[in-house]
Amino acid sequence: MMNVNIKALLTNFVNLTEEEWLVLSASLVTKQYKKGDYLLKENDYCNHVGFVDKGFFNFYYLIGGVEHIRGFFFPNEFISNYPCFLLENKSKFYIQALEDCSVTLIHRNDLLMLYEKLPKVQVLSRKIVENLYMEVSGKYESFFLNSPEERYLELINKRPNFLQRVPQYMIASYLGMTPEGLSRIRKRNS
Amino acid sequence: MMNVNIKALLTNFVNLTEEEWLVLSASLVTKQYKKGDYLLKENDYCNHVGFVDKGFFNFYYLIGGVEHIRGFFFPNEFISNYPCFLLENKSKFYIQALEDCSVTLIHRNDLLMLYEKLPKVQVLSRKIVENLYMEVSGKYESFFLNSPEERYLELINKRPNFLQRVPQYMIASYLGMTPEGLSRIRKRNS
Repeated sequence: MMNVNIKALLTNFVNLTEEEWLVLSASLVTKQYKKGDYLLKENDYCNHVGFVDKGFFNFYYLIGGVEHIRGFFFPNEFISNYPCFLLENKSKFYIQALEDCSVTLIHRNDLLMLYEKLPKVQVLSRKIVENLYMEVSGKYESFFLNSPEERYLELINKRPNFLQRVPQYMIASYLGMTPEGLSRIRKRNS
Repeated sequence: MMNVNIKALLTNFVNLTEEEWLVLSASLVTKQYKKGDYLLKENDYCNHVGFVDKGFFNFYYLIGGVEHIRGFFFPNEFISNYPCFLLENKSKFYIQALEDCSVTLIHRNDLLMLYEKLPKVQVLSRKIVENLYMEVSGKYESFFLNSPEERYLELINKRPNFLQRVPQYMIASYLGMTPEGLSRIRKRNS
């Protein structure tokens, strides 16, 4: 079953003719993940990139038995360990479903084939990775320029529904604070 | 004066015919920066991207009067505040020449024109931003996974000539440690 959202989503980046969409969509596969399932584990190779259709994932590093959550993948967002996908390296982090999820994926070989077949996929891919780059640069910048409290407020402004869906201890881990510290910040800003 | 290196450099990413190179190179400009000059200041708009031909730059955030150095641009490396270039936002950091420098640049309007004119520039740009993304993701990952000492060793392994050219206090700032902390690490690893 192909999710129709993905077509609308890709059209934000590049206009595809019906014929181009048929060629591209023939390479897409939809996969289901149950809550708790892993899309990727530490030391896995990452051969796919995709978009989240439904549900959401987190990604975390496991250091000394402790999960350090570094981000989330929500519906309509790109999902992958893209540096590992590009370098064909093993992943250092886990990607885990936090709800029952559906994801539309493409395999590296199919993407490389499409680069040759459809020039617009080059444009699409450039724009997607530009967005990824802006996002990670923004996170990196925010880490140096903003306090944990400012990062918390940035997060809830950007994602107002976030707090309802994500357990507190994960938000605390993501912001690099203790659950108690997060609780104090929430009280101050409620 | 057009630096010939840039052609070889771009050929690492994509093969250009002589005709394509002539079209592309007509949009490139070479600029000289004296030691201490700024390529970009906080609150500047960033309308160019380019490659360093000669010399090197650092980039830093000025926070409460203190320079926080977050990276360097060396010869043959891409140079820009690329998120600001893409978003047409004001820069939050400075890019400063640490030696007399030469840089080959392209203006945003010319790049957008080339995207239409030369499909290979789409490929080139995709590959460049993929590299930028891998680099910043690696830095971000290293920040969480590695100790300052490990990041120091990673840096000198990757850039053996780095230590001779960059003042100690800048390396310390880049690694997020005091000059005394860096000095102790250097002694342990000399």
